[in-house]
Amino acid sequence: MPEQITLGRYLFEKIKEAGVNSIFGVPGDFNLALLDHVKEVEGIRWVGNANELNAGYEADGYSRVNGFACLVTTFGVGELSAVNAVAGAYAEHIPLIHVVGMPSISAEKQKLLLHHTLGDSRFDDFTAMSQKISIKLKVITEFDDAPKIINDLIETAILTKRPVYLGFPSNFSEALVPASDLSKYKLQLSLPPNNEEAENEFVENVIELMQKAKNPVILVDACASRHAVIEQVEEVARLTKFPVFTTPMGKGSFNEDNKEYYGMYIGALSAPDVKEIVESTDCIISIGGLLSDFNTGSFSYSYATTNVVEFHSNYCKFKRANYEDLQMKGALDNLISKLPQINLKYEPKLSPPKSKYEYQTAKKCPEGALIQEYMWKRVSYFLNEGDVVVTETGTSSFGILTTTFPKHIKAISQVLWGSIGFSLPAAVGATFAVDDFKKLNSSYPERRVILFIGDGSLQLTVQAISDACRWNIKPYIFILNNKGYTIEKLIHGPHESYNNIQPWRHDAILNLFADDVEYENLKVSTNKELDELFKCEKFNVPDKIRVIELMLDEFDAPSKLRLQAELSDKINSA
Amino acid sequence: MPEQITLGRYLFEKIKEAGVNSIFGVPGDFNLALLDHVKEVEGIRWVGNANELNAGYEADGYSRVNGFACLVTTFGVGELSAVNAVAGAYAEHIPLIHVVGMPSISAEKQKLLLHHTLGDSRFDDFTAMSQKISIKLKVITEFDDAPKIINDLIETAILTKRPVYLGFPSNFSEALVPASDLSKYKLQLSLPPNNEEAENEFVENVIELMQKAKNPVILVDACASRHAVIEQVEEVARLTKFPVFTTPMGKGSFNEDNKEYYGMYIGALSAPDVKEIVESTDCIISIGGLLSDFNTGSFSYSYATTNVVEFHSNYCKFKRANYEDLQMKGALDNLISKLPQINLKYEPKLSPPKSKYEYQTAKKCPEGALIQEYMWKRVSYFLNEGDVVVTETGTSSFGILTTTFPKHIKAISQVLWGSIGFSLPAAVGATFAVDDFKKLNSSYPERRVILFIGDGSLQLTVQAISDACRWNIKPYIFILNNKGYTIEKLIHGPHESYNNIQPWRHDAILNLFADDVEYENLKVSTNKELDELFKCEKFNVPDKIRVIELMLDEFDAPSKLRLQAELSDKINSA
Repeated sequence: MPEQITLGRYLFEKIKEAGVNSIFGVPGDFNLALLDHVKEVEGIRWVGNANELNAGYEADGYSRVNGFACLVTTFGVGELSAVNAVAGAYAEHIPLIHVVGMPSISAEKQKLLLHHTLGDSRFDDFTAMSQKISIKLKVITEFDDAPKIINDLIETAILTKRPVYLGFPSNFSEALVPASDLSKYKLQLSLPPNNEEAENEFVENVIELMQKAKNPVILVDACASRHAVIEQVEEVARLTKFPVFTTPMGKGSFNEDNKEYYGMYIGALSAPDVKEIVESTDCIISIGGLLSDFNTGSFSYSYATTNVVEFHSNYCKFKRANYEDLQMKGALDNLISKLPQINLKYEPKLSPPKSKYEYQTAKKCPEGALIQEYMWKRVSYFLNEGDVVVTETGTSSFGILTTTFPKHIKAISQVLWGSIGFSLPAAVGATFAVDDFKKLNSSYPERRVILFIGDGSLQLTVQAISDACRWNIKPYIFILNNKGYTIEKLIHGPHESYNNIQPWRHDAILNLFADDVEYENLKVSTNKELDELFKCEKFNVPDKIRVIELMLDEFDAPSKLRLQAELSDKINSA
Repeated sequence: MPEQITLGRYLFEKIKEAGVNSIFGVPGDFNLALLDHVKEVEGIRWVGNANELNAGYEADGYSRVNGFACLVTTFGVGELSAVNAVAGAYAEHIPLIHVVGMPSISAEKQKLLLHHTLGDSRFDDFTAMSQKISIKLKVITEFDDAPKIINDLIETAILTKRPVYLGFPSNFSEALVPASDLSKYKLQLSLPPNNEEAENEFVENVIELMQKAKNPVILVDACASRHAVIEQVEEVARLTKFPVFTTPMGKGSFNEDNKEYYGMYIGALSAPDVKEIVESTDCIISIGGLLSDFNTGSFSYSYATTNVVEFHSNYCKFKRANYEDLQMKGALDNLISKLPQINLKYEPKLSPPKSKYEYQTAKKCPEGALIQEYMWKRVSYFLNEGDVVVTETGTSSFGILTTTFPKHIKAISQVLWGSIGFSLPAAVGATFAVDDFKKLNSSYPERRVILFIGDGSLQLTVQAISDACRWNIKPYIFILNNKGYTIEKLIHGPHESYNNIQPWRHDAILNLFADDVEYENLKVSTNKELDELFKCEKFNVPDKIRVIELMLDEFDAPSKLRLQAELSDKINSA
């Protein structure tokens, strides 16, 4: 390495240090000089996306698997096309850095009427917009501050699990910093310790409550995976033997073949035997809770709220008492260190509810046209340990709730933000992350990325498939062809034309995008065909990109989606 | 009509009254109840787009031909996907109303943690973002105000030629208003008159200057078409005989076969004979000026600034004197009423510069591979009176500057905002507008919509072609296949991989999207083939949607683009 490096290189070296090996984005004239420096960093690839929204979603999907991601766009036109994706990352606690190539400082000082501006010689309109969806936003204005700003933003994103924004004026790319700054300013990526007294007090309260509890449950939600305490949760369950339930957003955060796993709690949308257990508990240990409508059966939780303990990323709560700034990671570690010394006396009186095993009905394949009632349960046997399963807001994010996962499945869905079209690029981004891991470590286990998306949602972001083909990465793309926006039809206007879409020839997609990579188009119309496809050994090897069209009736839908849809329409018209 | 109508219907009736017959957008659960009422308004169609960004761009293109447009999205996820398009409309003075279906007022009051929120129970983050790109933004919170708000927003958009934003909580769609409100609250769409004294004083000054001028010129820019004074400009030119020049953004705003038309002025990028005339003038009448970088050859205007008169939409300027709030429309009408009584004495000493006739070299078709030097001039003979020509920021928006237009060509390009991908949906939107005119008036002349877009830009918004196929509308889509972002390669990094794209099989696009409509794929590799295609009678009839792939060398580019690219790179690194 030379004695001095450019600031452009400094940025990408730090992004690499934060674990990123693929950078998403679209070039534009205000970021071109910056992009010159990507290639100087060993092992980083510039993905080069078909558009910015997809780049943003891919960064999100990449981060969900990898832990962090980087998105580069250009001033105004580029960054605004990505705001929906960044807002989604903000809502869903996904860390990423959005680097925006901006006009040079001198152009701003002269108030030049540049292209990509609103024509009012103002240069801060777009940062003001991104402020709302960034946990921290900085624009480099003085060269001397730049390395510190870069470090601070990356650290903030990773520690808070939220997006940050870096405005990078085009004149700074070539400015030189000492290469020694790279080691001098190492990234600080570990959480600061909790206040010891607060942590101890909270944990002792929790233990005391646990000791008294007769039929406690653990409820695992979104932020358990987002804030990386999945292993701690597993350990707490092992030590306490408490039954564990997940929420829709918590699905995949607890191994479902553990004996402590009892099922999924979604308020009124839960299986009756699950509902009964959770709502008659005398102690709830909630981890990473995120009580949004689609995550709670439209706020239909109805357990006793007296003895609830909440573990969150930036606070904890014991009954009604808030412990501000107490982070769950430290609190859980503390709890785990103390539990072995405690005699909890708790022995599970109940076996897991029958609904836990409902997926096993898929062992028998029904005759006839493909139906979701069968399909989602059958998927349980298709999945392998470690697979990444991506579902779209709609039929598939509700359908997947009836699939039982093998160990270490990474589930990706956007239950809170719920932007249709997200899942396709998110799956592509996740595949890039898996691909990067494999490149770095040849013994990294085979992990397939499996996407289920509806025909309506696919249309929003279809060119993400081109991004996958460009790098020959190989997700499974299951397209649920049910003739339009079935989730919307169930919520409101089942026969209104606004819920229909233009029919596409799905088997033509890869012909358009795939250029010189191998690919396969498949179509499944009956349960039998699905069963056979899933049994096919060749199909199970992710050696090429595949589009599998699943032909479904327009109104065939998971029952949980039907219930949720009714509840949603009520809220909307209230 | 019933005695009472829903507020949803009131909205769409008013949008119809403002001249809109096609509504663009994507359904989402917070706008479904509102969309129920589109069908109640006779003659309005819900286009139903593949995604929101395209819906926004299509609304922009529709408005450029039609005068106004309506875009409907859903809260958060939908509206944010469209902000780039709306910001473009703001920058480029395009009137449209962005209607956003929001959660019900009661959900907001209860601070429900709904999907499509950032998870912080705040409902005003997204309106704060749209505030920056809307000339006026309102959210209906009280039912009684709603009709007035709707009228005010539509009137403001049309009079200022900018986008407005209407937040429409889902609970208000079914609320009832008296049908008589429709006629009671008629839209007021004419500009208020100017202050008479100011207008007279300004016009008299202008006339005095015109009388003294020895070699005056008229310079027609972007806002002449945006604020609809094209006919007035024509009349001023006829009455004064002054030579007329257009700018890139003014192209199409003055009939180029008029004898007063002298060519295009772009500062340093102008033809030398044009540059000489404009820069030696002693009086400039500038109409609708918008002095952005790409519109001025990177600010390289260098005419004498002593005797300059500026007509703008919301002020006028005589030499150094500002006439605030003086609108050009009234001022031009006033000028036109007085000019016949004035003896200007001016007689053009010069004939139009030779560069005006340069396009005629295309009468001779050169041998060999297709080149832009020939192609753009040849397009002059392909175009028919009244056609709509849409070009993308990049090769084609610079190339079209060397095409000479027949009468009444509508030119659409996004020279200021410059968001790549814009032109395809804009062309689709423009075709919807032409289609609507034809439906309303069977004697409406045949107008073809002809798009030129690069292979890189196409990738951002390709699914707009699906929107066209859904309604069997028939733009000509010329794809310049030059292997990536040629404009970026010329600005910076000609051989950097970040300026490359995934190659697509362009002849597979219509197969994917067209379902049951007729279509045609064509490919042109030589100048001869282009010439013959343009001569083909059948090809000249817009009876089906066509994709014509133009095979070009990666670095073949219009010379004006080469010059602009060099100037841009300098500004960016300064």
